[in-house]
Amino acid sequence: MRTDICDLLDIEFPIFAFSHCRDVVAAVSRAGGFGVLGAVGFTPEQLAAELDWIDKEVGDNSYGVDIVIPQNDAGAEEGDPARLHEKLLGQVPPEHFAYAKKILSDHGVPELPPGEFHNGLLVRSTSTTARLHAAEALRHPKVRCVANALGAPPQDLTGQIHEAGRLVIGLCGSVEHAQRHVANGVDIIVAQGAEGGGHTGYIGSLVLWPQVVEAVAPVPVLAAGGIGSGAQVAAALALGAQGVWSGTIWLGTEESELTDQQRDALVVARSQDAIISRSLTGKRSRMLKSGWTEAWEKPEAPVPLPLPLQDLVAGEAVTRLSRYPEYSRDVHITPAGQVAGQIKQVRRASDVLLELAGEYVETTERLNALNERLDAAPGTAAK
Amino acid sequence: MRTDICDLLDIEFPIFAFSHCRDVVAAVSRAGGFGVLGAVGFTPEQLAAELDWIDKEVGDNSYGVDIVIPQNDAGAEEGDPARLHEKLLGQVPPEHFAYAKKILSDHGVPELPPGEFHNGLLVRSTSTTARLHAAEALRHPKVRCVANALGAPPQDLTGQIHEAGRLVIGLCGSVEHAQRHVANGVDIIVAQGAEGGGHTGYIGSLVLWPQVVEAVAPVPVLAAGGIGSGAQVAAALALGAQGVWSGTIWLGTEESELTDQQRDALVVARSQDAIISRSLTGKRSRMLKSGWTEAWEKPEAPVPLPLPLQDLVAGEAVTRLSRYPEYSRDVHITPAGQVAGQIKQVRRASDVLLELAGEYVETTERLNALNERLDAAPGTAAK
Repeated sequence: MRTDICDLLDIEFPIFAFSHCRDVVAAVSRAGGFGVLGAVGFTPEQLAAELDWIDKEVGDNSYGVDIVIPQNDAGAEEGDPARLHEKLLGQVPPEHFAYAKKILSDHGVPELPPGEFHNGLLVRSTSTTARLHAAEALRHPKVRCVANALGAPPQDLTGQIHEAGRLVIGLCGSVEHAQRHVANGVDIIVAQGAEGGGHTGYIGSLVLWPQVVEAVAPVPVLAAGGIGSGAQVAAALALGAQGVWSGTIWLGTEESELTDQQRDALVVARSQDAIISRSLTGKRSRMLKSGWTEAWEKPEAPVPLPLPLQDLVAGEAVTRLSRYPEYSRDVHITPAGQVAGQIKQVRRASDVLLELAGEYVETTERLNALNERLDAAPGTAAK
Repeated sequence: MRTDICDLLDIEFPIFAFSHCRDVVAAVSRAGGFGVLGAVGFTPEQLAAELDWIDKEVGDNSYGVDIVIPQNDAGAEEGDPARLHEKLLGQVPPEHFAYAKKILSDHGVPELPPGEFHNGLLVRSTSTTARLHAAEALRHPKVRCVANALGAPPQDLTGQIHEAGRLVIGLCGSVEHAQRHVANGVDIIVAQGAEGGGHTGYIGSLVLWPQVVEAVAPVPVLAAGGIGSGAQVAAALALGAQGVWSGTIWLGTEESELTDQQRDALVVARSQDAIISRSLTGKRSRMLKSGWTEAWEKPEAPVPLPLPLQDLVAGEAVTRLSRYPEYSRDVHITPAGQVAGQIKQVRRASDVLLELAGEYVETTERLNALNERLDAAPGTAAK
């Protein structure tokens, strides 16, 4: 499965692993893939510590950092995160906070100790925070790529990333997105089909990938949304992608940041349990069905706010559920793709990577056997 | 691409073409694939005429007939179609008929001449009609398979089909459906991903196919939803399917039943224009966005009725739009999958089939070249 992007990034397998967990990122890059740390949810100081740790663990290999800048960030450009936080807080109706707190108390999730930091105190998906994340990433020379989960970064940031000798990765959910990203200087496109976890679009992977590949050639395309086996990697390369971008399968590893309860939920989930919800960020996001997502579908629920406001509403829940994992069985918040239905056991990240590679080889051998069968019996079925 | 199902059905390419157009069915079976005629919308007498025609055109090859029986048909089991029609009509609120007529008149679509038959006078998706269709199919010996677009036929009908020496094909949108169908005697499973046209589910093809293959092995699985190129066929076989089931690409052929205006709409459609609507049958159905689908999304629109009642509501529109094609530019009713976004020109059905086969070979050769590249430079990127 050696494609041009393997040469570009000096990697053995064109398998990109998106994870919020530094252990997964380091394990995948060390094993010949390319780990990408999701920066959202980290303060700049926390992110610096994570990247320092990965730098030490990753040896001579490189890795990436994923930031989240909305394409339309009107009103959230503000140099000082604290001032921005205050400004955004003022836009959240009290009923949203009350409803989020009620969901947690209905499930008996304890309050945080007074004064303890939670994610609702952090502005997550704005260019202000993403710029701080990007600056931190560029201070780490082994960070070879900066990805924006919502497409092309603003022009000046793309310029900074390029000046620092790094590459820009942009995610897209349609041909039009992809073309816009390339016009804005994105070096590698991730085409994510509707089955993917987190923010996702409407077009299925099988249909989206080849159209994006054709539309942006020769810009390399990574296939995302539904990558959980080597056969799915083979399908991605068959459809013209130069590699794959995967997230959900890494949630199912021993190393991942999930609570044990979330990992259990992931293992038992069927594909149809990875549903679309706006309850986490305000944008369409695929996540495991849970007490949290269902509460936001009830008739009495307030309508989720747009990004980045719903982030603030959900932030406290994210932190409380990870602080008190024993309560995260029913009411967890777990972005995940439909490939969740394929995860039947928890494994080590490096084993998952090698299994993908092994299954890929088996798959191409199986396809070849079908062709040889045809060659061996030409025209036997021809009329 | 020679798989076991090629031997089972004595076909050259495991490419199944679903179409309501007899020309497409005959052309595909003649060219080495397997055509399947969609019977819905035909009276039993019309269907008999279509099958007689195909029998003559298809030479020594075989083909299939697709019928539509809901899994839950309570209240629609009734021997006499005319009595059933009257019974069902009584369940349709007058506002639904009025709204459908208003959509047509808003777009200037002429009324049918008095007394002229239209599709709203026909009970389409019930076991009563489907049994008549199946009986007609079994009277034609070249009909090798009877497919049910909504899964497993009732047990007694499956028994009749088997006794006649034919095979039962059942469509599914989830692993659970597939397992139920196999338990009910279905011989070949079609796993249709969410991107597919017509009645469709929630799970993307890339994720659905391998799970269904694994769940029902050794029962053969055909991959549906997003098949429009040989690379997509290769992806399907890579994921373990024994062949593909395609519908939308055949709409884009010279032979298809679409009006020229619908064909134009198909050629310009992007994948995101193939949306989910309940306006045609009452069930989730993917179709091209048009004045018809948009009208049913308006706040003042009545909520579409469940199958088979919405069929009756939409039936007159289906007929009027095909009778007066010059009005079908904006207000057409065109079930189609997301693969519509790949169709850029109208071609002959036999050319489409041969192109799929040719692209398939190119794709597997391209994958092999990637492997050879790895073999030729072992460990160059290994750390």
